[in-house]
Amino acid sequence: MITSEIQNAIFPKGEKANPDYFTGAVFVNTLVSADDPFNASVVNVVFEPGARNNWHTHPAGQILIATAGIGYYQEKGKPIQLLHKGDVVKILPDVLHWHGASADSEFTHIGITPITEKGSVTWLERVTDEEYSNLK
Amino acid sequence: MITSEIQNAIFPKGEKANPDYFTGAVFVNTLVSADDPFNASVVNVVFEPGARNNWHTHPAGQILIATAGIGYYQEKGKPIQLLHKGDVVKILPDVLHWHGASADSEFTHIGITPITEKGSVTWLERVTDEEYSNLK
Repeated sequence: MITSEIQNAIFPKGEKANPDYFTGAVFVNTLVSADDPFNASVVNVVFEPGARNNWHTHPAGQILIATAGIGYYQEKGKPIQLLHKGDVVKILPDVLHWHGASADSEFTHIGITPITEKGSVTWLERVTDEEYSNLK
Repeated sequence: MITSEIQNAIFPKGEKANPDYFTGAVFVNTLVSADDPFNASVVNVVFEPGARNNWHTHPAGQILIATAGIGYYQEKGKPIQLLHKGDVVKILPDVLHWHGASADSEFTHIGITPITEKGSVTWLERVTDEEYSNLK
């Protein structure tokens, strides 16, 4: 099923994400740049199994739309949540969180990020293997 | 192929769209409401073959992400453009336009609309059958 979803992907995979902010293989396809006149960026992100971004916050929040595979989403102090195709995550401003693929499946989401004078994202420390594998 | 895409749809079809602003059968699934704290709404829209919205403008623009089927997009005074899965349309503020399905295929897009003090959309007249069938 995962293979058929990848063959049926909506967008090309895009560029390798900055390894300073991501663990494992992650690909970012920028659909709408922060320079476009919409006060928001839109990206398509593909995480290979086990890959995730660092802990981070968004000064104006972020919307994630899961489009393929199985993903993880965690806010600080809460359990890891599973994400499936069609799930929408509304991340409120300044909430500390991370997201990525599940251990055994690739995961794809669209991310919509409002751009503000305070920027769009503040990157923090890596998600450790211990944190990543703490799925309950 | 269209059938397989529908079976593989990312989102449930949603509610029938307001017939004052749409011609034919159109379904809207609101993923992020204008009431959420993101200054933007996000909707998934499914147009049955031949269905389209009225001519309209957005005071802060709109981003369309085509996810399935074959669609039409037209700006006033320009030819109708075909839309396919993975196409992204960046509609600038106040540009008069319409979008919908092609004559023979269902079409699905995500729409991201910034919300401003001036609202998010201004609806105008219907797209006539003559305008709709003027594909060159």
